[in-house]
Amino acid sequence: MIPASLQSQYTPLARPPSAARPAHVLLACTGSVASIKVPLMVQALLKYAHVHVHVVATKASLHFFDKDSLSPAPYTTSDLAALNRAAGTPEEAALHAQVPRVCVWTDEEEWSSWTQVGDPVLHIELRRWADLVLIAPCSADTLAKICHGLCDNVLTSFLRALSPSTPTWLFPAMNTLMYLHPFTAPQLEQVQTQLGYQVYGPISKRLACGDLVGTGAMCEWKDIVAMVVDHFGLQL
Amino acid sequence: MIPASLQSQYTPLARPPSAARPAHVLLACTGSVASIKVPLMVQALLKYAHVHVHVVATKASLHFFDKDSLSPAPYTTSDLAALNRAAGTPEEAALHAQVPRVCVWTDEEEWSSWTQVGDPVLHIELRRWADLVLIAPCSADTLAKICHGLCDNVLTSFLRALSPSTPTWLFPAMNTLMYLHPFTAPQLEQVQTQLGYQVYGPISKRLACGDLVGTGAMCEWKDIVAMVVDHFGLQL
Amino acid sequence: MIPASLQSQYTPLARPPSAARPAHVLLACTGSVASIKVPLMVQALLKYAHVHVHVVATKASLHFFDKDSLSPAPYTTSDLAALNRAAGTPEEAALHAQVPRVCVWTDEEEWSSWTQVGDPVLHIELRRWADLVLIAPCSADTLAKICHGLCDNVLTSFLRALSPSTPTWLFPAMNTLMYLHPFTAPQLEQVQTQLGYQVYGPISKRLACGDLVGTGAMCEWKDIVAMVVDHFGLQL
Repeated sequence: MIPASLQSQYTPLARPPSAARPAHVLLACTGSVASIKVPLMVQALLKYAHVHVHVVATKASLHFFDKDSLSPAPYTTSDLAALNRAAGTPEEAALHAQVPRVCVWTDEEEWSSWTQVGDPVLHIELRRWADLVLIAPCSADTLAKICHGLCDNVLTSFLRALSPSTPTWLFPAMNTLMYLHPFTAPQLEQVQTQLGYQVYGPISKRLACGDLVGTGAMCEWKDIVAMVVDHFGLQL
Repeated sequence: MIPASLQSQYTPLARPPSAARPAHVLLACTGSVASIKVPLMVQALLKYAHVHVHVVATKASLHFFDKDSLSPAPYTTSDLAALNRAAGTPEEAALHAQVPRVCVWTDEEEWSSWTQVGDPVLHIELRRWADLVLIAPCSADTLAKICHGLCDNVLTSFLRALSPSTPTWLFPAMNTLMYLHPFTAPQLEQVQTQLGYQVYGPISKRLACGDLVGTGAMCEWKDIVAMVVDHFGLQL
Repeated sequence: MIPASLQSQYTPLARPPSAARPAHVLLACTGSVASIKVPLMVQALLKYAHVHVHVVATKASLHFFDKDSLSPAPYTTSDLAALNRAAGTPEEAALHAQVPRVCVWTDEEEWSSWTQVGDPVLHIELRRWADLVLIAPCSADTLAKICHGLCDNVLTSFLRALSPSTPTWLFPAMNTLMYLHPFTAPQLEQVQTQLGYQVYGPISKRLACGDLVGTGAMCEWKDIVAMVVDHFGLQL
C-alpha cells in the first residue's frame, strides 16, 4: 500500500494529453547493442504532440549512442524538482510549457546534483515525474540486477524507488545464448509476478553479434513507439 | 563450526573495557544520505573511554561525509596486522596504547596494501580485529549485495569473511518507496535468519529526499551510539 | 535445446589434438590471490603440443599477475572473429598455424573492439572459440555473480553466453571464512545442478592471508594442468 503522499501529484492525463499536461515517458536504456535505437525512438516520439521524454542511460548504454545526438537542452535535477513541486498546482501548466521536451540523465548527474541535505535526489525526482517507464533495451545484466534488488546506478535506483502504480514495460535484448541461459526465463517471470512489470519480446531476428536468426532481439523500435502512442492516445 | 584458529585471538573484553583491551567497533557505512551522521557517531563514541573505532566506507558513502573530518592518524594495513598478531600476547596491551583510536578504510587501502604473497589482506585483518560490527547506514544496494553473497568492495568482502560469532547490527536507511519495494522485507528477514545479523529500524521521519513522513530512515544516530555504549558498558 | 547454428563450428578434436586443430582452452581468472598461479598454468600448458590458451582476466585478477609476463602476441577481436568464421572450412588449419598460442583479454578489449553494428563482440567470439573453460581461480564475488546471472564484465558476459555443451570447470579459491559463509555451499551446488559446471576443490592449506590451515585454497595448479592434459590427451 503506497501512501498518498508518495503517489503522483500531477494533474491526471487527458486522452490525448495536452500542452498543459503532457505525457511523461521515461526511457531507461542499458548496455545492449539495441541501445543504438534509442535516438530513433526518442525522435519518433517527439514528432507527436504533448509528450516529453527523459532518457536514463547507464554508462554501458552510452557506448551505443551519442547523448548529444538527442540535443537535450540544459536542465538540472533542481529544475526537475521545481516542476515536480508544481505538480497539481496552478503553476504546473506554465512550467510544462517552458521545460525541454527531451533530457538525458546519467550517473554523473545523480551524484553531482546532491551536495547537502535538502538537495533533490535525481532518482527520486524521476520517480515522481514518470507516467510510463520503458526499459528498452533491458540487457541480461540489468535484468539480473533488477531481480535481486541491486541498485548501483541511477537507472536501477530509480526502478527500486518506483511506485508499483507506474506502468513499467521491459523489453529484453540480448544474444540468443544469453537468452537461452537457464536464469533468463525465471527472471523474466519474476519481474512480472513480483514487480508487476510487463515484458514484451524478445523477438527472433539476425543479431548484431552475427549469430544466425535466433531469439533475443529487442522488439522493433517502431512497435515500441506505437505502443506508447496507443497507451496515451498521442496525436501528430 | 568455526575452527579455533579463526576465532578472535584478543584478550576477552572486561566490562567496562580497559586501556589494555579497548572495545573494537567497526562502523561500516554505505551510499545512503544517512552517512552524513557517520562523523557524529564516531565523535560521540570517542568521548567514551577505551573504545576504538574503525570506519569502513564504500565509495558511495564518501559522497556524504569527509573522511578527513574524522582526523584519522596515519595507519596502515601492516600496522593493523601487527596489532592482530599481538592479540593474546603480552604485547597486546602496549600496542593498544599506541594505535590511533579512529581509522577510516576505503577500497583504495584494500588494493594498495597488497603487493605480494604474505602481505596482509585488509578485509581479513579487519575481521580479526572487530568485536562489534555496525552497518550504519545500510543502503538498499548494499543490503542486496549482502543477501546474494556479492563482495566487490572492502566492506562487502569484510562481511563475507566475518565470523558468525561477531555480533553484527544492520541499520537500514533508504527512501520510503525503496523500503516498500517487494524485495526489501524478505532481504531484511534473510540477513537475520541466514546470517544471524540483528536489524534495527528503519524508522519513520521526514526523509532527506523531501518525501513527507515515511518509513525508511536510519535509527537516530544517538540511539545507535547508546546501544554500543550499553553493549560494552562504556564509561565517559 | 541449442540451435545447431549456435554450436561450435570447429572441426571435431582428435586425441591428441593436431596442429591443424589444436585444443582451445579458455582460462577465466578472477580477483583471488590464487590468480598469481595463472602464468604458471599457462606456461605449463604451452609446453604441450597443439593447445592454445586464451586468458580472460577480470580487472581485480590483474592485481595478482602481470599480463605482459604471458608474452601475448598482438591479436584483436577481429582476428579471433576471422578464425571463428574459418571454423569448419578448409582455411581453418592454415589459420590455426598463424595465430598466437596465448592471448589475454580484459574488459578494455570488450569495449574498444566494438564501434558499430556488424563489429564482432568479444564475449561472443570467445564463446564460439572455447573447447574447455576453466574458471581458475573463482573468487567468492564472481561465484555470486554467476549464480545470479550478473554479467558486468567480459568474463561473466562470456559465461552468460556460453553454450551448455561446452565443459566448464570451476575452481573456487577464497579465504576459509568466506568459504564457510552460509551462501557458499548452496552457490557451488547451484552452478553444478543448474548450470552443469564441474566444481573442483577448494582444498585445505595455509592461505595467503595468513590464516592457519583451512579449506578455501584453489586446487594445486599442477593438478589443474594435469586435468586439462588428460581431458584432451595432450602430448609434450
